[in-house]
Amino acid sequence: MTYCVGIKLNQGLVMLSDTRTNAGVDYISKYKKMFTWEASGDRAIVIMSAGNLSITQGVIKHLNQAIQRANGGENIETLFTAMSMYRIAELVSDAIKMQQDRYRSVLLSQGIDADASLLLGGQRNGGKPRLFMFYSATNFIEATEDTNFFQIGEHKYGKPVLDRMITVNSDLSQGLNAAYVSMDSTLRSNLSVGMPLDLAIIKTGEYRFFQQRRIEQDDTEFANISKSWADALSNGFSGLPSLVP
Amino acid sequence: MTYCVGIKLNQGLVMLSDTRTNAGVDYISKYKKMFTWEASGDRAIVIMSAGNLSITQGVIKHLNQAIQRANGGENIETLFTAMSMYRIAELVSDAIKMQQDRYRSVLLSQGIDADASLLLGGQRNGGKPRLFMFYSATNFIEATEDTNFFQIGEHKYGKPVLDRMITVNSDLSQGLNAAYVSMDSTLRSNLSVGMPLDLAIIKTGEYRFFQQRRIEQDDTEFANISKSWADALSNGFSGLPSLVP
Repeated sequence: MTYCVGIKLNQGLVMLSDTRTNAGVDYISKYKKMFTWEASGDRAIVIMSAGNLSITQGVIKHLNQAIQRANGGENIETLFTAMSMYRIAELVSDAIKMQQDRYRSVLLSQGIDADASLLLGGQRNGGKPRLFMFYSATNFIEATEDTNFFQIGEHKYGKPVLDRMITVNSDLSQGLNAAYVSMDSTLRSNLSVGMPLDLAIIKTGEYRFFQQRRIEQDDTEFANISKSWADALSNGFSGLPSLVP
Repeated sequence: MTYCVGIKLNQGLVMLSDTRTNAGVDYISKYKKMFTWEASGDRAIVIMSAGNLSITQGVIKHLNQAIQRANGGENIETLFTAMSMYRIAELVSDAIKMQQDRYRSVLLSQGIDADASLLLGGQRNGGKPRLFMFYSATNFIEATEDTNFFQIGEHKYGKPVLDRMITVNSDLSQGLNAAYVSMDSTLRSNLSVGMPLDLAIIKTGEYRFFQQRRIEQDDTEFANISKSWADALSNGFSGLPSLVP
């Protein structure tokens, strides 16, 4: 399984992913599911992936190969040259389609799930932070003022806190805390979601990553939020009225 | 969808269910999913159901018909005469098997899900409170000291609070609050789970229902817990450290 969450706020973007991949409970491994591209001052882009790993790895490979070919002199549109985040989303969609076309029928004929879903967040010079979610059919939707977060993978355990706490007007600290708490709840309830985590933050109007880091098992910042939240829940629960005499 | 939760504590049992049933999002109706049997001083029994409604209604009907036939003089074992909660669980299992045998192949041939799951809780004179969960295959498991709650239906949204807050040593007030909060989170995140609710509480050593009631939309007790919990979460979230300058 996987859990990735992307939150779009007026102040910017918060993207957080886990790293656990499993093929059955007896084959668990660690794969980075967050991929970033940055041209400081021009754009910062992050993609997070869930689903069939061969499909999603192929998508990332395809996007990176296009960049290499462009660097080699080919006249080809890439994540670094596309004129808008929407156009970047179309390039990602094309890359998903290419992988699906190549493998889907064979995978399905062997009863293997070919589904893959991705989140794309980013900001380019002159544009606002934007957040997209891609389905296996390669179509995509964009986060709005009303629905300003997307989740892929194991989304249910971490959804209530996002539903309750986050609007587009929340600040980046609140966005980061909500992503942490949402991930923490998911880690506790589903063993197939696991540490370490990958985090990326983009501030509105800054065309680079404000923060981008790996969060290991012993990370004090994450552990602090996890502990503070556990205490808050425990105290809140203890404070509920006693209804059974 | 459906959400039912049963919690076994040293102090007794807390059982809570919603009443929403849907066949697609455009056909939503209200069905009681909690069924109770009481012989005050001898036993109190509660069953909650999720899944294919025709199957689960048939199970309840079958159990009640056996009681009617026994009342009519037939020598037949029923929920009121079985010698232990375990034997009652076997009777429930038999009733599920009868319904599955009768309809499953026809349902499956038409692509209709025949799955049904049930929770059985109760206590009979001389025994302790016991809680069982039944699968569609009619087999069942019992709650223990380590795993002292069961959920059926839409279980994910309401699981984190149970994981964090409840052990067999929690008191009945804590058990009831956890059931309320778990249901509240589920109601908020899944529209196919809906009010009113049905609640049953059995105290250890009391062979009757301590509490058994319908919780309507305007119920002040449930609204109070829901509001108190929302406030506690909100305050707890506001109190988390601010990490993004």
